[in-house]
Amino acid sequence: MDRTLHWLRAARHALVAELRQLVHTSQLLRATTALVHQLQRERGLSNLYLGNAAAGWHDALQRQLEATDQACAAFLAELDSLEPGSGAAGLQRARLLTDLARVHQGLQALPWLRRRVREHGCSPRWATQAYVRLIQTLLSMVFEAADAAQDPDISRCLVALYHLVQGKELAGQERACGAAAFARGAIEADEQQLLLHLIEAQQRSLEVAASLTSRELTEALDGLPQQAELVRLERLRRQLTSALPGAPLDRSSSAAWFAACTARLDALHELEERLVGELRALCEHKCELAQRACDELSVAQLNTRADDAAEAAFFEADDAAGAGLALPPLPAWPHTGSGCVLDVIETQARQLQQVTAELEKVRHNLQERRLIERAKGLLMAHQGLTEAEAHHRLRQMAMNQGRRLAEVAQAVLSAAELLPAQRSRA
Amino acid sequence: MDRTLHWLRAARHALVAELRQLVHTSQLLRATTALVHQLQRERGLSNLYLGNAAAGWHDALQRQLEATDQACAAFLAELDSLEPGSGAAGLQRARLLTDLARVHQGLQALPWLRRRVREHGCSPRWATQAYVRLIQTLLSMVFEAADAAQDPDISRCLVALYHLVQGKELAGQERACGAAAFARGAIEADEQQLLLHLIEAQQRSLEVAASLTSRELTEALDGLPQQAELVRLERLRRQLTSALPGAPLDRSSSAAWFAACTARLDALHELEERLVGELRALCEHKCELAQRACDELSVAQLNTRADDAAEAAFFEADDAAGAGLALPPLPAWPHTGSGCVLDVIETQARQLQQVTAELEKVRHNLQERRLIERAKGLLMAHQGLTEAEAHHRLRQMAMNQGRRLAEVAQAVLSAAELLPAQRSRA
Repeated sequence: MDRTLHWLRAARHALVAELRQLVHTSQLLRATTALVHQLQRERGLSNLYLGNAAAGWHDALQRQLEATDQACAAFLAELDSLEPGSGAAGLQRARLLTDLARVHQGLQALPWLRRRVREHGCSPRWATQAYVRLIQTLLSMVFEAADAAQDPDISRCLVALYHLVQGKELAGQERACGAAAFARGAIEADEQQLLLHLIEAQQRSLEVAASLTSRELTEALDGLPQQAELVRLERLRRQLTSALPGAPLDRSSSAAWFAACTARLDALHELEERLVGELRALCEHKCELAQRACDELSVAQLNTRADDAAEAAFFEADDAAGAGLALPPLPAWPHTGSGCVLDVIETQARQLQQVTAELEKVRHNLQERRLIERAKGLLMAHQGLTEAEAHHRLRQMAMNQGRRLAEVAQAVLSAAELLPAQRSRA
Repeated sequence: MDRTLHWLRAARHALVAELRQLVHTSQLLRATTALVHQLQRERGLSNLYLGNAAAGWHDALQRQLEATDQACAAFLAELDSLEPGSGAAGLQRARLLTDLARVHQGLQALPWLRRRVREHGCSPRWATQAYVRLIQTLLSMVFEAADAAQDPDISRCLVALYHLVQGKELAGQERACGAAAFARGAIEADEQQLLLHLIEAQQRSLEVAASLTSRELTEALDGLPQQAELVRLERLRRQLTSALPGAPLDRSSSAAWFAACTARLDALHELEERLVGELRALCEHKCELAQRACDELSVAQLNTRADDAAEAAFFEADDAAGAGLALPPLPAWPHTGSGCVLDVIETQARQLQQVTAELEKVRHNLQERRLIERAKGLLMAHQGLTEAEAHHRLRQMAMNQGRRLAEVAQAVLSAAELLPAQRSRA
């Protein structure tokens, strides 16, 4: 009996340990989104500085570097409090740790990137893309965290965060792209197309995030476009996307563009912080519940005696493990009382099965969305389509073939390996 | 640079830790299959004893109880060497540990079951099903182990073992069912139907196992029916399944039936042991490789210096994380030399992605097979179909609806919750 309870408690402890790790992860994610927020700002200001050094963006950029360094120090301190060796094993853990190695490598290369910018040693476009890469390494940690979480509610919350963070990054790329154009005093045709894509794609990401978050957050996300700064942003967006390519653009709007975009990004970052806060609270709440379930087991132990009834019950229980039986279930052996420990085992097994099934669904969903995004990206690169066109193309293929969107996306990605690259990657 | 390598090494260590755990699991599985083998024998002898006490099966059963107890002690000793608290966390671990609690509870109820048998306090059918339940709790551990393994090759090996072990258990149920009939000197119609199902179903399980194992094991599995004892088994099978229900059956064939079935089960157990041996060797080999990959990283560290080239490389690498980029990849910054650490990171990230994708496939496969088995079981219970009929019905539904077998199985299982039970479970 003691050993049975020993294993039952060990099982519950495994859940507590996993949830404790998620509390740490949520702290790390707070530091990650804060660092990304500063890097996005640094990217925008670098573009203004590179495009028009005369306009005095030097000081603003300099101040920003300090703010980024602070966020970076906080992020690294949070990393140091992670103990990679302790306990946690497995493939997902290995992926997350490899991401961390990549992030580290990127942060070490940051001074080099800043030097290039300061010395005007690269174009705004090159600088933008270098920052994009650094930020993406940070964001892929959020994806790994969402993929690794083993609680369906927490996983859902992480998936929402992943989409919010992606939407905000696309908004940040929009700010950088527009800043470069205003600073230069002209916009090129491919920049206009990129802007249109970034506006569409960020909207789609934010909609997914809204569909997965709490009511208040959803309302806050929906309310964003109504804010005063964002109305101004819409006017400036129109100016950029409707200008004749190469024709002069009002350079003095640089500051207004940067301010309007930054207001949007700050609002999104506030939502990020609220969502991370909710995540943290959720992890702690679940951790508490799991710990209580662990503690309660000791009480159950006291109520249990081995007797004939309990032993008969083992062979007669209508349990989940019986699903694989070739024979019909056993007729009940006449007995009184309940197999108390057995009830605990069967309830626990059933709950774990339910959680597993629900988690499968959330993860499957996340994987499918990622497949679709990647297939869209491929169509955009290979066929020169916009985001909306690529999305439409995939939908049409799915309808014609009577298949699900994710299946078509998978087919597109599989076929891509066979195709010659139509647009060189260098 | 040091921190980057620190995280890279931590990632590889997470893989080593996971593989070490699999080495332990393979040891536990050896003890599990050995215990199951003895319990299956005990079930068969109990049926002979219950059916015809006069024929002197008492002593053989008594000797068998001792053999089972030995295997049980070895199994429990193996369990004690598992450290449930140390490190491993998460849902799958919790499921496996809950299974262990159930196994413990079952083994504690075994003396009670034996007492019933000794006192002729239950029917052979009841005893069979009680042993089936106990054995199934042990076998579900093999399933959990296959589901939890995070290496595709090891997972494939475990899935093969799961099917072999299932096939053997069906052969064991066949032995018990036939033993009861011969001992009683008559067979009933529903026993004949059960026998036919057990023969078909074990064949299907063994075929799946053969398709997943090494060439030698596949050949050994295919060669089984040609063995002399098994030719004898076929004759006795015919005798049982073609007898008129209720008509007298030659009771003196009991021993021959038991011997022929036991030869088959022993041969299958030998294959189990070989497969568990292969599994163990595979786990150790993979563990060694992973450890070497860990050690090699220290050497790579010595070859690496931070320089401009390495830093530039970070922003230009054509990496996996870049797949989510909205922008085309960066044009290369002119530099000489290679970003050595970066190459290591990108290679490691790519390998982890590949392993993850392959693992998804193996697991998905296992889940689908399980869905199909469960849907078949449901059709057999609800519609009174045989194994073959249920299989045929599912295939036909899939063809008519142009859907995959697993999708139809899922639909059947989902719909089942809405249906009233056509055949009561008590």
